[in-house]
Amino acid sequence: MLGFRHYSNTPVLFLPMQIVEQIVEMHDWSEAERRQSRRIALIPTMGFLHEGHLCLVRDGKARCDRVVVSIFVNPRQFGPKEDFTTYPRDLARDVRLLEKEGVDILFHPSVEAIYPARAQTHIEVENLSLPLCGAARPGHFRGVATVVAKLFNIVRPHMAVFGEKDYQQLQVIRRMVRDLNMEVEIAGHPIVREADGLALSSRNAYLTPQERGAAVCLSRSLCKADRWFRRGETSGRALLCLVRSELEKEPLAKIEYVKLCHVETLEDIEKVDDAALLALAVQFSKARLIDNRVLRR
Amino acid sequence: MLGFRHYSNTPVLFLPMQIVEQIVEMHDWSEAERRQSRRIALIPTMGFLHEGHLCLVRDGKARCDRVVVSIFVNPRQFGPKEDFTTYPRDLARDVRLLEKEGVDILFHPSVEAIYPARAQTHIEVENLSLPLCGAARPGHFRGVATVVAKLFNIVRPHMAVFGEKDYQQLQVIRRMVRDLNMEVEIAGHPIVREADGLALSSRNAYLTPQERGAAVCLSRSLCKADRWFRRGETSGRALLCLVRSELEKEPLAKIEYVKLCHVETLEDIEKVDDAALLALAVQFSKARLIDNRVLRR
Repeated sequence: MLGFRHYSNTPVLFLPMQIVEQIVEMHDWSEAERRQSRRIALIPTMGFLHEGHLCLVRDGKARCDRVVVSIFVNPRQFGPKEDFTTYPRDLARDVRLLEKEGVDILFHPSVEAIYPARAQTHIEVENLSLPLCGAARPGHFRGVATVVAKLFNIVRPHMAVFGEKDYQQLQVIRRMVRDLNMEVEIAGHPIVREADGLALSSRNAYLTPQERGAAVCLSRSLCKADRWFRRGETSGRALLCLVRSELEKEPLAKIEYVKLCHVETLEDIEKVDDAALLALAVQFSKARLIDNRVLRR
Repeated sequence: MLGFRHYSNTPVLFLPMQIVEQIVEMHDWSEAERRQSRRIALIPTMGFLHEGHLCLVRDGKARCDRVVVSIFVNPRQFGPKEDFTTYPRDLARDVRLLEKEGVDILFHPSVEAIYPARAQTHIEVENLSLPLCGAARPGHFRGVATVVAKLFNIVRPHMAVFGEKDYQQLQVIRRMVRDLNMEVEIAGHPIVREADGLALSSRNAYLTPQERGAAVCLSRSLCKADRWFRRGETSGRALLCLVRSELEKEPLAKIEYVKLCHVETLEDIEKVDDAALLALAVQFSKARLIDNRVLRR
């Protein structure tokens, strides 16, 4: 029956989603789909899905014939003091959400399958991994790059969609794909926000109600900087100062960084010419939140 | 005409070898061959080919429908004080040798094509890269792993053949392929030797006639240790001492290392149970030579 569902050309109304846990099974499915000349989109996630993820899924669905979503909370991208064990998980809910979107495969491997004993290889995208989140989270982007490369080799997608909230991650992956000659198209999807501007994130679940109210300062400060930029302010110092002072109005928010940098290299810049990335990370009691905005003429 | 040569099913007697320099062209050729369900073998080399390389080519040819040989002297696997610029090169001769073997494609990319500006990604196979040659050549196996991963993604071979002279390199690549879920079969080919036992190597060209005579001490010492092992000697200390004293008889040879280690993890071992790798590196005036022997019951 599974074979029929996937390998027939007969149009059917409802294709139930398959949950695949085994690497070999995932790989074989993709190879079979590729032999039928079907284009596969992969949406790599850590689960606890929100509307932001679902937008990536819809994007993949619109561009490809098949959509695979992976859920894997990757231990190697968490630091020793970070929230790997407490990272929010709700597989049953994730399954319902993905089924509603018409996802073909949910790939949900175990940690042991992804990192068997003696696994010791990692991929480093050097310069892009150093600033911004990389400064506070050493090893984070190495973990991300390595697991994404593995997922690409297992799922063999034609394209993969990543959210632009994790802007640095998107740049790291684009660079890795280019540098290692991987044959995957990388698409970025604009940040999806709550009505008040807060960027959707699984870690928003950590916010207390009071912090949730305060957390709007991230997007508000970026918006304000963008308005100043549109009115002619191009000095990095002035824009960063503006964002910082907006954030500092919120006593619950502790700034980790606010940076203005080159949209591709992520190197600090002092003045916006055509475009720049304004990026920030803010710590609340339990939640470390990030947000960004590309200032562009 | 090129299209006809490669995509026709008509048997032809002679298929001249193509030299491909462009990554896209190489990749497209492989994709076309794969669509025809042809199996592709890749033999990655740094050129200045000898009979050892040609044995790898024949091995690939026996196992696959198409053989691609890459020649790329990879700057990133040479240390700053090593012989990158003086590494022997003779492309015209290599071309003649490969044509005689019936190789389908010689892939010969430029350094700029493989490492464009801003390339910054590398692959590290951690534990396996540390001992033996890794100790004296920091960054060497990182350079090897990265370029081999790139070649795999460009050429998309079903299998790749590596010589067992570079035993550590073979283990690093096997581990990388497993750890990153690459879909390439890795075959090792036994060391090919001169009549007197010297392992073939492009770097043998650096030896003076006198050193060439002395260099037989590498294989002779390994053979002697193997004989002792077969007669019951399993102590690492005794075997290493034997090899060292054999090498030390040659005043032109400067020992870099002599090690007895686990055949897979390459960790030092003190006693041979079922099997062990006996590996050594010796420096002559210009030539750094390596050799090894697996002791196996």
